[in-house]
Amino acid sequence: ARVVANVRLSAPKPFVRLQHTKPVHQVFAPLDTFAPRHIGPDSNEIQAMLKQVGAKDMEEMLSKTIPSSIRSPKPLAIKEGIPERELLGRLKAIASKNKVHRSYLGQGYTDTVVPNVILRNVMENPAWYTQYTPYQPEIAQGRLESLINFQTMVTDMTGLPIANASLLDEGTAAAEAMLMTWQAARRKKNLFVVDENCHSQTIACLKTRAESFNIEVVTADIFNYKFDEHKKDLCGVLLQYPNACGTVEDYEALTSSIHSAGGQVAVATDLMALALLKSPGEFGADIALGNAQRFGVPLGFGGPHAAFFACKDEHKRRMPGRLVGVSKDANGKHAYRLALQTREQHIRREKATSNICTAQALLANMSAMYAVYHGPAGIKAIAQRIHNMTAVLAAGIRENGLVVENDGAFFDTLSVKVDSSSSILQKALTKNINLRAINGQTVGVTLDETVTQADVADLLEVFAQEGAPAVSIDTLASALPQVNSFPIQLQRTSAYLEHPIFNSHHSETEMLRYIHHLQSKDLSLVHSMIPLGSCTMKLNATTEMIPITWAEFGNIHPFAPVDQTDGYRIMLQELEKDLEEITGFDGVSLQPNSGAQGEYAGLRVIRAYHDARGDSHRNVCLIPISAHGTNPASAAMAGMDVVIVKCDEDGNLDMEDLKTKAEKYKDNLSAVMITYPSTFGMFERGVAEACEVIHKYGGQVYMDGANLNAQIGLTKPAEIGADVCHMNLHKTFCIPHGGGGPGMGPIACKSHLAPYLPGHPVITTGGQNAIGPISAAPFGSASILPISWAYIKLMGGQGLTNSTKAALLNANYMASRLAPHYEILYTNENGMCGHEFIVDIRPFVDHGVAAIDVAKRLQDFGFHSPTMSWPVTNTLMIEPTESESKVELDRFCDAMIVIRKEIQAVLDGSVSKENNVLVNAPHSLETLMADEWNKPYSRESAAYPMPYLREKKFWPSVSRVDDAYGDRNLMCTCPSPEEYMDQ
Amino acid sequence: ARVVANVRLSAPKPFVRLQHTKPVHQVFAPLDTFAPRHIGPDSNEIQAMLKQVGAKDMEEMLSKTIPSSIRSPKPLAIKEGIPERELLGRLKAIASKNKVHRSYLGQGYTDTVVPNVILRNVMENPAWYTQYTPYQPEIAQGRLESLINFQTMVTDMTGLPIANASLLDEGTAAAEAMLMTWQAARRKKNLFVVDENCHSQTIACLKTRAESFNIEVVTADIFNYKFDEHKKDLCGVLLQYPNACGTVEDYEALTSSIHSAGGQVAVATDLMALALLKSPGEFGADIALGNAQRFGVPLGFGGPHAAFFACKDEHKRRMPGRLVGVSKDANGKHAYRLALQTREQHIRREKATSNICTAQALLANMSAMYAVYHGPAGIKAIAQRIHNMTAVLAAGIRENGLVVENDGAFFDTLSVKVDSSSSILQKALTKNINLRAINGQTVGVTLDETVTQADVADLLEVFAQEGAPAVSIDTLASALPQVNSFPIQLQRTSAYLEHPIFNSHHSETEMLRYIHHLQSKDLSLVHSMIPLGSCTMKLNATTEMIPITWAEFGNIHPFAPVDQTDGYRIMLQELEKDLEEITGFDGVSLQPNSGAQGEYAGLRVIRAYHDARGDSHRNVCLIPISAHGTNPASAAMAGMDVVIVKCDEDGNLDMEDLKTKAEKYKDNLSAVMITYPSTFGMFERGVAEACEVIHKYGGQVYMDGANLNAQIGLTKPAEIGADVCHMNLHKTFCIPHGGGGPGMGPIACKSHLAPYLPGHPVITTGGQNAIGPISAAPFGSASILPISWAYIKLMGGQGLTNSTKAALLNANYMASRLAPHYEILYTNENGMCGHEFIVDIRPFVDHGVAAIDVAKRLQDFGFHSPTMSWPVTNTLMIEPTESESKVELDRFCDAMIVIRKEIQAVLDGSVSKENNVLVNAPHSLETLMADEWNKPYSRESAAYPMPYLREKKFWPSVSRVDDAYGDRNLMCTCPSPEEYMDQ
Repeated sequence: ARVVANVRLSAPKPFVRLQHTKPVHQVFAPLDTFAPRHIGPDSNEIQAMLKQVGAKDMEEMLSKTIPSSIRSPKPLAIKEGIPERELLGRLKAIASKNKVHRSYLGQGYTDTVVPNVILRNVMENPAWYTQYTPYQPEIAQGRLESLINFQTMVTDMTGLPIANASLLDEGTAAAEAMLMTWQAARRKKNLFVVDENCHSQTIACLKTRAESFNIEVVTADIFNYKFDEHKKDLCGVLLQYPNACGTVEDYEALTSSIHSAGGQVAVATDLMALALLKSPGEFGADIALGNAQRFGVPLGFGGPHAAFFACKDEHKRRMPGRLVGVSKDANGKHAYRLALQTREQHIRREKATSNICTAQALLANMSAMYAVYHGPAGIKAIAQRIHNMTAVLAAGIRENGLVVENDGAFFDTLSVKVDSSSSILQKALTKNINLRAINGQTVGVTLDETVTQADVADLLEVFAQEGAPAVSIDTLASALPQVNSFPIQLQRTSAYLEHPIFNSHHSETEMLRYIHHLQSKDLSLVHSMIPLGSCTMKLNATTEMIPITWAEFGNIHPFAPVDQTDGYRIMLQELEKDLEEITGFDGVSLQPNSGAQGEYAGLRVIRAYHDARGDSHRNVCLIPISAHGTNPASAAMAGMDVVIVKCDEDGNLDMEDLKTKAEKYKDNLSAVMITYPSTFGMFERGVAEACEVIHKYGGQVYMDGANLNAQIGLTKPAEIGADVCHMNLHKTFCIPHGGGGPGMGPIACKSHLAPYLPGHPVITTGGQNAIGPISAAPFGSASILPISWAYIKLMGGQGLTNSTKAALLNANYMASRLAPHYEILYTNENGMCGHEFIVDIRPFVDHGVAAIDVAKRLQDFGFHSPTMSWPVTNTLMIEPTESESKVELDRFCDAMIVIRKEIQAVLDGSVSKENNVLVNAPHSLETLMADEWNKPYSRESAAYPMPYLREKKFWPSVSRVDDAYGDRNLMCTCPSPEEYMDQ
Repeated sequence: ARVVANVRLSAPKPFVRLQHTKPVHQVFAPLDTFAPRHIGPDSNEIQAMLKQVGAKDMEEMLSKTIPSSIRSPKPLAIKEGIPERELLGRLKAIASKNKVHRSYLGQGYTDTVVPNVILRNVMENPAWYTQYTPYQPEIAQGRLESLINFQTMVTDMTGLPIANASLLDEGTAAAEAMLMTWQAARRKKNLFVVDENCHSQTIACLKTRAESFNIEVVTADIFNYKFDEHKKDLCGVLLQYPNACGTVEDYEALTSSIHSAGGQVAVATDLMALALLKSPGEFGADIALGNAQRFGVPLGFGGPHAAFFACKDEHKRRMPGRLVGVSKDANGKHAYRLALQTREQHIRREKATSNICTAQALLANMSAMYAVYHGPAGIKAIAQRIHNMTAVLAAGIRENGLVVENDGAFFDTLSVKVDSSSSILQKALTKNINLRAINGQTVGVTLDETVTQADVADLLEVFAQEGAPAVSIDTLASALPQVNSFPIQLQRTSAYLEHPIFNSHHSETEMLRYIHHLQSKDLSLVHSMIPLGSCTMKLNATTEMIPITWAEFGNIHPFAPVDQTDGYRIMLQELEKDLEEITGFDGVSLQPNSGAQGEYAGLRVIRAYHDARGDSHRNVCLIPISAHGTNPASAAMAGMDVVIVKCDEDGNLDMEDLKTKAEKYKDNLSAVMITYPSTFGMFERGVAEACEVIHKYGGQVYMDGANLNAQIGLTKPAEIGADVCHMNLHKTFCIPHGGGGPGMGPIACKSHLAPYLPGHPVITTGGQNAIGPISAAPFGSASILPISWAYIKLMGGQGLTNSTKAALLNANYMASRLAPHYEILYTNENGMCGHEFIVDIRPFVDHGVAAIDVAKRLQDFGFHSPTMSWPVTNTLMIEPTESESKVELDRFCDAMIVIRKEIQAVLDGSVSKENNVLVNAPHSLETLMADEWNKPYSRESAAYPMPYLREKKFWPSVSRVDDAYGDRNLMCTCPSPEEYMDQ
């Protein structure tokens, strides 16, 4: 019998989501209001859910959940939600104020031709952009394969054996490289030398990061630096290849001498240039990093883009970020999964040098797909064309009587000596061209894949000297020498992208099918709820996503002249203002491009505040034992000493312990880090008092905003007593998770901290006493900020508040439904949880059923597991968000209840402890339709534990993946076809 | 063991698709050239394939395939292909010449708010738009469910029990209604009366269609027409509700009197109006029809939109177009499929009154999704808001001292009496507003869902009288009466959209999941090749598709003032010019919006030509026995007598028979219809001679363009000797099939026929002696024409020609690989086929294996079946197109070869004739993992007949569907949940 999925089988109830009997004066009110589309339960469902949780109305539910002492005294001062159509019109008008010029500004960002098949089928496709981080590999083989393609591409191009699945940006990747060399030197050598010809934002990021670790960053003319005089202190060196002026240097001898001095060599580089140039691995580099943006990701005013990071094999266990590896599943079949994952889940807390969680998965996938689509010859052709045009431009400039400073040693960037940079830049602007002033007499021009013959001709006119004879571009082209314009020994001779995956999908049809084939293996929000505690997997609405790929937002260089980015600035300022209203704070920095970066930024701001007051000794950070692992890691990175505060048995902060420790460390107390609601999903009653205690002893309160979705419109971090917080825009404010990034983690703070908000060396940002940059780009991943801007404007103050209420109700409804079947950890005195709750699996562990078994069995029901074993081992933390309807919540609860019965059968001993439907989960198609079936339960009970699954089910594409095997046999590039055949 | 799908397992070959060693003067040539992305096989593959077919090079392959006598003497005069990025820039510049005004022009087209979740996930999603017509229901349950939602929506709104799955447009739907009434009267009553207040393009379409059937269409003031005086002749009446002037008339008494006079009542109506108005079914109408466009489909300068058509139960076997019904599968499970399908496949040829094949499936799906998303209350609220604003506008116009002619009897359209329509229209234009001049002193204004308060205020200003006091819109709104502004007895009291499907998916999350759930059941070009003979399922490239949803193309009313549509006109003229060059003809009409409409238009043009020469008696049309069923149907519709010409045993036209019949009918010979290459996929040698014969006897040659993909750049219809042909832009020119429409079938002709190309009553089109309109909109489905424009521009003349060559090679390669295993019907003297070929299954039929078994078994390999049993019963006709790579062709051939072995086992008697892997195919997931397995073969052999399927397979969602059961138990609306539960 077929069953209709997700269709209410009772008689339809009247649809009361929209107001249909408007008073006459509302005759004009548009009907495409967004809040009812965003919030899952309709009014009928809300009534039924309130009944289930034992509250007569929403207000009673709230009063039982949130301490009245912290409820906001007045509603959010954010206007009524704007209808979807009107919103897009308004944003288009704002976006149109950006001027899309041709930008030859380089510095790690160049324009690119995004293949439309990738644009539409990856970047604009919710089946790709709503995926979660692939912690459940059985339902994530698609993006894991794509990410291992990315890793393979990076190892090939850089000539180094291990690459990760992306970092946030080139600047922070360089900082990670620096720390890798420092750690390789057992933290005993503190000198890191940077070539003065590295990108300025990279140098600034390095310096910011180095401070807390007391690493000395020396900027130097690298060829004249006496490395042998610094053998004792030298941990590493950063080079740029080609360098920031565009010069292609031969670093081979230099690398040897750095190695002789005991230093490691990190090379910031450019994947496109490496298609023609000898790779860093081939000239001896230990680490290579850079921005993969020009492989098919829009400029986007600075991000999001995927940074890449590759290193020698000896460093692989120090690799920051996520690493995809090959392992095997329960049937012995090849399967991908995140390797060495324990590093991330149990991030090294107070010993950490990195707090990286979020990667740039979606953008890494786009770049990998770009390589898959073009293949080695295609990539080489693109690189060669860019280089050839640069050579033609150089020849033309020469003909014009000007000097190209890096003549004979360039890839795509020329440094041109001129009388006055500013007058050349002005002349260029008259043609809607942006050039870079390297200094008063040197102009930089960087070409890219989009450049046409007409563009080169325009550039030649810009560089034309008064009265000089006109230069024919055709003559220049035909006179182009047959050799490249860089030293012959740097010509790349090694092959790359030889794996079949880069040599099979070059027609659009094949590419389309490859993208959809991978997609078909990945569960995302287009399939079912992803109830991840602390991750807030809510709706990423189409109207919010559409503007992201508008040229007015996508094609702006991050260092474009300020007067060309008015549209961005209006949008960013409006977003800042709204975030201030929502948090109650006075200043915002939109720079940090992940939650963890936000934490780090916030703590650095606190440090700067203390420093400015002469309190540099204040370096103790109190952190509750229940905190996210990133909290202590961020504190360590900010140079603070972490002191752990206990929690009581209900999961609440142990106020006595807090008071004791605050007092004990009062002389050096810098900050406390609090998550609210707590990481146990609780609105702790003592939170305001805790803030008072910290303030009393001279500390600042940092609030982790991971759970901000439970606060909006009901309370505010500032009202609770915090001084600064970050906001995960990819959780609370609807930026999609993208399969593991991008994210954004802006911070907001009170006025006394605002002067220290992060600055930027190229584009002015932050306060008057700004700390150094946290991200390479001035506004982080600016091009995804319209998503959060749009979400807030679409919902309006009332909509946002209703959304929070629905999030709390959804969680309490589920907890209430599951309570008869599972123990719910940590509810308050009224039996309520916050926006998430924890289901205890520990009572079953001794009987052989662990949280992972429930998590994997949920896959058989077509669901993604909740957060597993965090914050408590062998528990599941469930956060439904407001976007899920009651029907979906019930479907999930029903699945959990069926699983509970399956657990009971194990407990009762009626089924085998070692061989049952739980420990064997998930059941892949291949397993289920194997000719041989020797399991002690039936195929159908494995495949279809509930009737609706016969109509609608997402199938895991492999069976349970063996993590330990993969970590023991680490393999992080595409397996060769032969390896597949050998299976 | 895992196997890598679609990855070459041998060492990768160098990728030579792009030219990488360009001469220096080509340094600037862009690399995003499109042809290598469109054409599947790369140069290595082409060499291997030529070897397989026994040709030393492409030219030899061509010379063995195409008669040299018809090869074009010179290459196509179409410029080199434009790179993708440049093309989009160029088209954007053209599109920007369209002026997107606010159009209140009505006449069956109004603006709408397309829900973005539907826009992105249906209209812009290749998994929806590349689907084929759902003839294989087991892999098409998703769109079949959506189309039955459409049918249910239409039956609900119109109050009639049976609705089809869309027609081409309102004008032709009205023509179908007329013919339904005529057929109901056994073709014995020839008077059809049309209210003069029907839309003018509808009346014109009716008249065009009526001519050939000698039906007299009388336009009348319908309330004063004496029906009782025409009892003998009256077959039917067409009313418009609300009528073209916006008046809502009570037709109940009129309907009774028409019925008394023996006539049927057809009502052209508006789904949105029916949300408030008594339905046609409730006042006794026999047929209702109209345009579903305003349910979430962009205006698009006239199309494509889905027309709807509903009728009383007694007419259901006369229903034109496609009808989706509910049946059951081999397991007894509910399953959808096209009902009464035999009507279509064996279209009634020379007895036909309709040649409808293509529907508007994609647009019908969008409209159905719009209803699913809004639900009954949402739809009602939208309708009520439109009506309320219209009432406010009417009140304001009244205050201004003007008369609303249909005051008290309107829904969304006002007829306003003015001094001078033209001066009001001028005044409106200054505000970028389009109004309609109904006549010199009456202006029409039609409001829609997008209208805002500011829009109404602007309209009031347009109607403001000099010196009159300003009218406050707020005052008007607050004075709005609580009753609707139409007769109270016409207020709708019956419910609609009560099925759960319209009451469950109102949050965006639920809607998104519903769309993706349906999508997951449907095989499309994102999965694998769809090798349908005569359907040319080639790549629909993203770059071609992107402009379709630009506002500059989407938001233009078809009757917008000509000077606002310059962008469209430039694009259309360029497309016409290119099509003329490709066909060798002198004139083009872009009006017919399906291939069959093109045939009909071409034949009508031929008739008009004969008529103009005084040869009205020329009415014999020769048609080969092998022709598409639409050919004789179109000839019949054009009023011609069909005479069949034989074919010889090789499938070629029997030249003797042709000569004999041409001579026999020489006095009355009108035309011959030829498909080239023939429907057997052959380049017949005698084609030029056949044309000469026809011309000798005074006839004209109509060439069916279904197989034009095999001609482009190598030969031309005009060169072969044809006088007129149509082109299926959805086959040859990359418009996607959309799951069964839209399509486009423009015609091209020689100069002597050009004066007769179809006209239009509102917007001038066609020649100086134009025949009446073939479609309701002047340029058919204009908004999808940029796809074909872009395809031609992207490919360029050389690319198009290479594409044809690749299409021929692909087909011959497959035929060559399959020839050792199956008999290939109809190859030429060199053993070559054209762009498609026929595999004979007849030898196996007596052993119990029919074509359908092979077709269904192919689903188990993840493939869509080729064309089945046409043009020869129990054969499969395979057309790979040029877009498929050799890897994919091999995958398909390998599947066919494995199936051949499975057939052999049946032939050998080693497996049961009645119970084997073929007759039980396809094997759905539920079948395969049922606990019980009592088939005489293994599960794995059913599920995974080839190893790559373990890695990549598309699964049928039901097992074989029982067509006969469904036709016997016809059910064409959503089954109730109870029916599902009962299973």
